[in-house]
Amino acid sequence: MKAGTMLQVGIVGYGYWGPNLVRNFAELARCRVAAIADLDEGKLALAQRRFPSVRTSTDVNDLINDPTIDVIVIATPVRTHFKLAMAALKADKHVWLEKPMTETVAEARQLVDEAERRGKTLHVDHTFVYTGAVQKMGELIARGDLGDVLYYDSVRVNLGLFQHDVNVISDLAVHDFSILAYLLNQHPVAVSAAGVNHFPGTPENLAYITLFYDSGIIAHTSVNWLAPVKVRQVLVGGSKKMMIYDDLQNSEKLKVYDKGVSFTDDPKQIHQMRVGYRTGDMWAPATNETEALRTEGEHFLDCILEGKTSLTDGQLGLKVVEIIEAATASMQNRGRTIQIKNLEIIS
Amino acid sequence: MKAGTMLQVGIVGYGYWGPNLVRNFAELARCRVAAIADLDEGKLALAQRRFPSVRTSTDVNDLINDPTIDVIVIATPVRTHFKLAMAALKADKHVWLEKPMTETVAEARQLVDEAERRGKTLHVDHTFVYTGAVQKMGELIARGDLGDVLYYDSVRVNLGLFQHDVNVISDLAVHDFSILAYLLNQHPVAVSAAGVNHFPGTPENLAYITLFYDSGIIAHTSVNWLAPVKVRQVLVGGSKKMMIYDDLQNSEKLKVYDKGVSFTDDPKQIHQMRVGYRTGDMWAPATNETEALRTEGEHFLDCILEGKTSLTDGQLGLKVVEIIEAATASMQNRGRTIQIKNLEIIS
Amino acid sequence: MKAGTMLQVGIVGYGYWGPNLVRNFAELARCRVAAIADLDEGKLALAQRRFPSVRTSTDVNDLINDPTIDVIVIATPVRTHFKLAMAALKADKHVWLEKPMTETVAEARQLVDEAERRGKTLHVDHTFVYTGAVQKMGELIARGDLGDVLYYDSVRVNLGLFQHDVNVISDLAVHDFSILAYLLNQHPVAVSAAGVNHFPGTPENLAYITLFYDSGIIAHTSVNWLAPVKVRQVLVGGSKKMMIYDDLQNSEKLKVYDKGVSFTDDPKQIHQMRVGYRTGDMWAPATNETEALRTEGEHFLDCILEGKTSLTDGQLGLKVVEIIEAATASMQNRGRTIQIKNLEIIS
Amino acid sequence: MKAGTMLQVGIVGYGYWGPNLVRNFAELARCRVAAIADLDEGKLALAQRRFPSVRTSTDVNDLINDPTIDVIVIATPVRTHFKLAMAALKADKHVWLEKPMTETVAEARQLVDEAERRGKTLHVDHTFVYTGAVQKMGELIARGDLGDVLYYDSVRVNLGLFQHDVNVISDLAVHDFSILAYLLNQHPVAVSAAGVNHFPGTPENLAYITLFYDSGIIAHTSVNWLAPVKVRQVLVGGSKKMMIYDDLQNSEKLKVYDKGVSFTDDPKQIHQMRVGYRTGDMWAPATNETEALRTEGEHFLDCILEGKTSLTDGQLGLKVVEIIEAATASMQNRGRTIQIKNLEIIS
Repeated sequence: MKAGTMLQVGIVGYGYWGPNLVRNFAELARCRVAAIADLDEGKLALAQRRFPSVRTSTDVNDLINDPTIDVIVIATPVRTHFKLAMAALKADKHVWLEKPMTETVAEARQLVDEAERRGKTLHVDHTFVYTGAVQKMGELIARGDLGDVLYYDSVRVNLGLFQHDVNVISDLAVHDFSILAYLLNQHPVAVSAAGVNHFPGTPENLAYITLFYDSGIIAHTSVNWLAPVKVRQVLVGGSKKMMIYDDLQNSEKLKVYDKGVSFTDDPKQIHQMRVGYRTGDMWAPATNETEALRTEGEHFLDCILEGKTSLTDGQLGLKVVEIIEAATASMQNRGRTIQIKNLEIIS
Repeated sequence: MKAGTMLQVGIVGYGYWGPNLVRNFAELARCRVAAIADLDEGKLALAQRRFPSVRTSTDVNDLINDPTIDVIVIATPVRTHFKLAMAALKADKHVWLEKPMTETVAEARQLVDEAERRGKTLHVDHTFVYTGAVQKMGELIARGDLGDVLYYDSVRVNLGLFQHDVNVISDLAVHDFSILAYLLNQHPVAVSAAGVNHFPGTPENLAYITLFYDSGIIAHTSVNWLAPVKVRQVLVGGSKKMMIYDDLQNSEKLKVYDKGVSFTDDPKQIHQMRVGYRTGDMWAPATNETEALRTEGEHFLDCILEGKTSLTDGQLGLKVVEIIEAATASMQNRGRTIQIKNLEIIS
Repeated sequence: MKAGTMLQVGIVGYGYWGPNLVRNFAELARCRVAAIADLDEGKLALAQRRFPSVRTSTDVNDLINDPTIDVIVIATPVRTHFKLAMAALKADKHVWLEKPMTETVAEARQLVDEAERRGKTLHVDHTFVYTGAVQKMGELIARGDLGDVLYYDSVRVNLGLFQHDVNVISDLAVHDFSILAYLLNQHPVAVSAAGVNHFPGTPENLAYITLFYDSGIIAHTSVNWLAPVKVRQVLVGGSKKMMIYDDLQNSEKLKVYDKGVSFTDDPKQIHQMRVGYRTGDMWAPATNETEALRTEGEHFLDCILEGKTSLTDGQLGLKVVEIIEAATASMQNRGRTIQIKNLEIIS
Repeated sequence: MKAGTMLQVGIVGYGYWGPNLVRNFAELARCRVAAIADLDEGKLALAQRRFPSVRTSTDVNDLINDPTIDVIVIATPVRTHFKLAMAALKADKHVWLEKPMTETVAEARQLVDEAERRGKTLHVDHTFVYTGAVQKMGELIARGDLGDVLYYDSVRVNLGLFQHDVNVISDLAVHDFSILAYLLNQHPVAVSAAGVNHFPGTPENLAYITLFYDSGIIAHTSVNWLAPVKVRQVLVGGSKKMMIYDDLQNSEKLKVYDKGVSFTDDPKQIHQMRVGYRTGDMWAPATNETEALRTEGEHFLDCILEGKTSLTDGQLGLKVVEIIEAATASMQNRGRTIQIKNLEIIS
């Protein structure tokens, strides 16, 4: 598709996240929101009032079968992702899919294959990857400021909206899985997870997930829909520096600490403590404050119009689904360690 | 032993924690620090300067064999705990033992048996149990304010002193194990732990431990000697209320939240969200600000002089060692779930 | 005007605050936004796009002279307030006026008189008075929980938008003046203020204002457009309890401390310290989280339709202008104390 | 006095601060605590127990008249400072005097003259000047990192010990007066202060003080013994950078912000906002964590033994007393502006 084209966008799902997508796509210069589909006529009426020039429909096929539409954005419950995305790809549309990509690894793999076969952009909306803080973290790690990454430790808890179709891993830990894939460019080899549902008939509302990497890195995330306070905090330890990303701060979301330990090999000290501490400055770099969804939208259009590869493409989305699937299996077996690639049980 | 007696105390070990013990025992009305033993003459000289009237010795047997000494306080490396405590008990002394009680469950069990056989007080110094905040937490749980306890979630991280004889579980998670034993009066049935040592030849410096209870309670603790900031925070979720204990706050260490969820059974809502949220007041009760070690010292003397049972007696200390042993075994097997009672591997 | 009527609202000024006003009035059930006026056609185009059914005009007289319009909402620069509000009142409209009410006390007094003569509602938009936290503070003071109020101490600093027509007192301290009028139901008798403009040709960007009350209460506010961090914090000290209102907290904005001092009259202690401290619980009451502007809008309609008196009517707005005028005069004389009522210089 | 000499120190007053002084002087290599005087025999007994080799006396003259004593350290109530310090100087001792130096400017001036006449070191214990954070602040200002200093804004509040002989200005604001003298190397020309005593017969427990400098700098401090929380926070605004010093933080006490405003002179923008904002990185430099009193003690010995001039000598102490005297006078006249040099009333 040649640059300069005004892409026509159809958005499916106008529930919790849909209005944010419509607002952002409406403000992008290189595309136009042509149509919105939702099963709920009340929601469509709301959309119509805010965006009088956009066409609405309760039938998603009105969008998928419309040859003038170039892009389908899917913001529906996860159980419908595979079917809708596959239909859109088969109709030769570019696809923006909410996270998590699909319910199963097998489905995710089919979508990746289909998109590749047709040369279409398949983008998964892992929004956090596009925040200024995560982008800056990636930059610092990539240029070696942290030294070797040793661990990643995340806490995402709050008195949350209990989901009824997905568990807390799919809802919250998914953010860490995508950030990790972006920051480390490595795939974990095994996972051990524990979790519970405190209310019968509902999905797990609290979980602890540990990811193991061949490089020796360990990653952990605590997620909880039943906490009295909201926390969104990530620690990353490196051999040279360490950093903390607190997403709830209004400013200075990212802090980099020139702190660490060093070991002596002095044989005379072999029976004593051989660890030295280094406590230096702390530095909070200014980060890009553009709304992440805006940055992500521009990047998505670059992928379609300029042939770039999405930072959160189907491949990354697939890897995230692999981790969710393995973590959920482990959690349902009281922490049994699960190998990720082929989903075998290790122990 | 009849009330009114002035107990004679011998303290073994004048390293990191010993001076705090001497200072506190010196201030208690019902006892007197008679002697201090340490292998290091420099440390003894220091002790002598601060407490000119106390006898010092490099030979612990000078204390254990002294018939005028009633109590032996042991603040030495953990690998020496069993031998010293057993010798003291066999010499018919009451024993105060630093945490963790022993290196192995088997040793702990022998000490408990010996103390019981001889009718001596065997007390393990799990200091946190005696803080005003933990005491208040126990009170609130006991009188039902929280409803059913659902989870316990703790974070203890800092740029810590790397220990060379014990791992981070024995150093930091041990606090949670004793607090849990005190608060819940239940013993976990299984544990899954993950951890790493980032520096060859040193014990694990980072670990994540999940404890499973038959009642359905789940407990988790994150411990880390390699974090850029210090955190000491515990969340406890209950069916009625939730609480946060932040030990680093100068005031309002404990906050109780009147927050939670409630479920409807309305069949009409069966396909919708059935969860309601309750967001009420927060309350930070005043807590006893007496130094925990002082409170604990008085309690220890009550046990000896008035026949009370220590809140952190050998039985509790033994259970803590069981959890440490199981957690360490799980950690060394990448999270393999370990049953606690008989240390079998579940999966 | 009888209840049930649908009031027709005309809004003048669609700059920084205007869009918030339009959005809120548009959502109120008992009124309808009929027209928007602004000198800037670009802004009107923006308004038109968001609210296609609203009439727009660059001439404010189109609204003031329209007999179908019942209410004029004025969100223009303060130097235009008097003229526009007076014209609206003379056209027998109810008036909602942004803060500060007018540039001078004399103007404010004329508006109050005109509104009274015509039986129209004259409401000044001191939004903070309608926040859940300030309402709760008012409730606690009114029912005597704090005992006698002893002091009010506020800090409002940030790296702010430098205003070019008003100083930092009119921009930030004005919030404290209205909150104080609401909470205390007293008028200060004197003011001493200090301030500077750090950049030639601009209004004062930093000021410290102390208000003196006949009851002995002292109130102080620090306001600053040139601070590296944002602070919005109010302390209120009472003889029984004290409270802190931190508007930047996401939750627990208001905290009530059961702390204080008590004095002994024991003659034996006359040469010693006679003050005792009381340190009790802290309590963060749940507060109404409705958007303040929504609460205020409903209250304004109650005033018009049900004859209520506005909590922030012209009388309160006038008192706030008196304080601004006196404080600015004091500031321009390096803290010279100014009596408020008749603006005489005391010293 | 030649280097290498072991100075003999006599310490007068073993109340609140005295024990800290004894402990610190006892640890300095170049001096020896020879004697302690206090009127209270109980306190002397306490001192004797902790420091068995130190001579004690209830008569201060035993120290002042002892020819072997080189240094007199005075930590008694402020009303006794002048008499004791003058006696010590006349006995040819070097003097360390607690803050504030004296009750009156006249007394301070006499002490400065006497010390100069006799060539003795007269040092005032403004401890804060010797903290790592204040030293770092001084360094950053001196090397121009902040650009021109524009303002200094301090808050020191807590539920404090009500003093019965001095007001809250002498107790808390005194810290700011000494820090300002150290950082700015300028003397304020005028002061305006407001304050109250909420309890009859006690000194003022709450005060707001504004200092005016000829350079245009404005300094302000809020001090309060009746606040529900403890705050110790200083903001310093510069034309290039700004900084915050929070003394209650365990780490990162000092933060430097690369934030500010810049003005355009573009005539086309004359009717618009001409201010631009710069929001860059934040940086928390590592600061010296040595106990301030230790640093100060070494510096004091350098002054005596190496002829250095104390950073907080009698001249600085005198200037602080001038500000206290003027601020107290202003406070007792409801903020009346007072010129500092000759204590005339300006307005």
